[in-house]
Amino acid sequence: MDPTPREEACFEAGIKFGALYHQFAGTPVSSESAASLEHAMEDAISNQPHCESVSVAIDPEALDTTHGYTELTGEHMTVEIVVDYENRAVVARMAMDEGYPLMRVESVSE
Amino acid sequence: MDPTPREEACFEAGIKFGALYHQFAGTPVSSESAASLEHAMEDAISNQPHCESVSVAIDPEALDTTHGYTELTGEHMTVEIVVDYENRAVVARMAMDEGYPLMRVESVSE
Amino acid sequence: MDPTPREEACFEAGIKFGALYHQFAGTPVSSESAASLEHAMEDAISNQPHCESVSVAIDPEALDTTHGYTELTGEHMTVEIVVDYENRAVVARMAMDEGYPLMRVESVSE
Amino acid sequence: MDPTPREEACFEAGIKFGALYHQFAGTPVSSESAASLEHAMEDAISNQPHCESVSVAIDPEALDTTHGYTELTGEHMTVEIVVDYENRAVVARMAMDEGYPLMRVESVSE
Repeated sequence: MDPTPREEACFEAGIKFGALYHQFAGTPVSSESAASLEHAMEDAISNQPHCESVSVAIDPEALDTTHGYTELTGEHMTVEIVVDYENRAVVARMAMDEGYPLMRVESVSE
Repeated sequence: MDPTPREEACFEAGIKFGALYHQFAGTPVSSESAASLEHAMEDAISNQPHCESVSVAIDPEALDTTHGYTELTGEHMTVEIVVDYENRAVVARMAMDEGYPLMRVESVSE
Repeated sequence: MDPTPREEACFEAGIKFGALYHQFAGTPVSSESAASLEHAMEDAISNQPHCESVSVAIDPEALDTTHGYTELTGEHMTVEIVVDYENRAVVARMAMDEGYPLMRVESVSE
Repeated sequence: MDPTPREEACFEAGIKFGALYHQFAGTPVSSESAASLEHAMEDAISNQPHCESVSVAIDPEALDTTHGYTELTGEHMTVEIVVDYENRAVVARMAMDEGYPLMRVESVSE
């Protein structure tokens, strides 16, 4: 069957999460540079079609700074993205869940 | 509203496309190295949850080899990904569409 | 032969260029989001060892905005990085040269 | 001062390491997919100018497979790259050193 608008909206939300994660994973990050990275991630992904908002929070407590900085992974951040596709809004989040950076759909508007 | 299994399946398919694209965009590629890159992209993304199959075709004709190689972008490839989430199968594709690497859901099973 | 300190300094400068380029190539970018991406690239790479300064300039004129945004490549930016390794300073630059984003060492201190 | 050919060779070797690391860090990898990723990394970076050989070994023992796969980082691999720049050969390696993926020049030919 063809996808419904709600299903397309969910597909679009997934694209943004995969893009955000795999574009920026591996970026050198420290507590000093976390804020500029958060902003760049938000602004970059917001460029993509149907993207209403992107919010990235890097937890400075989660950064291992034994060597002064570390490389960004899912352990360090929570992300919320809102997509609007033909007036269907999808809210999706990424957060750690039992050691895995789980991405999931929170809600889809009717 | 909570997402349906079909909507979750579409979200999962989107994640795989965003991941594949943004992990590998920028990789140095030539007609000689295209095949090993295709295989690695397929195998890498197939590791992700709910991923049934990944098929990547890099078009050697699309590679600008003025400098011997180029960097992979959406212009160079078509991708098909099949996701199975709680017995809902999603088939999604990426291909060039009017100069833009368009990712879209082809079908969702009932 | 073992490398000299000047040679090690050049190796370190090369690492920073390769890292910057391949971490961020493919990032969605528009004239609105270029500034936050420049800052994040500068701050991220500055975390790496022996890095004195990083300066990234994304040229908004070079961005193809047919689709509202594009993906960052070497065509869009010039970069200058200064490395200090055991008191040897290396200044290196990346800029377009006959269609290729050429990275080169400008000077090495004695 | 201008760089010597040996210094340029070291700069080129550094570029390859930074590129390899930051292009592929974050790639989903399992013991089943490690071999195709190794080959793709070798072939991709070998495209770059002055690159004589690239050898990547991903250690399957180092992969955390609690979730079936993990994301590639420096902990999982050793890399050797040989660059030839105007007949100066540089051999450089990346391996873990006290918890840090250290990249270093092993030797530079006269």
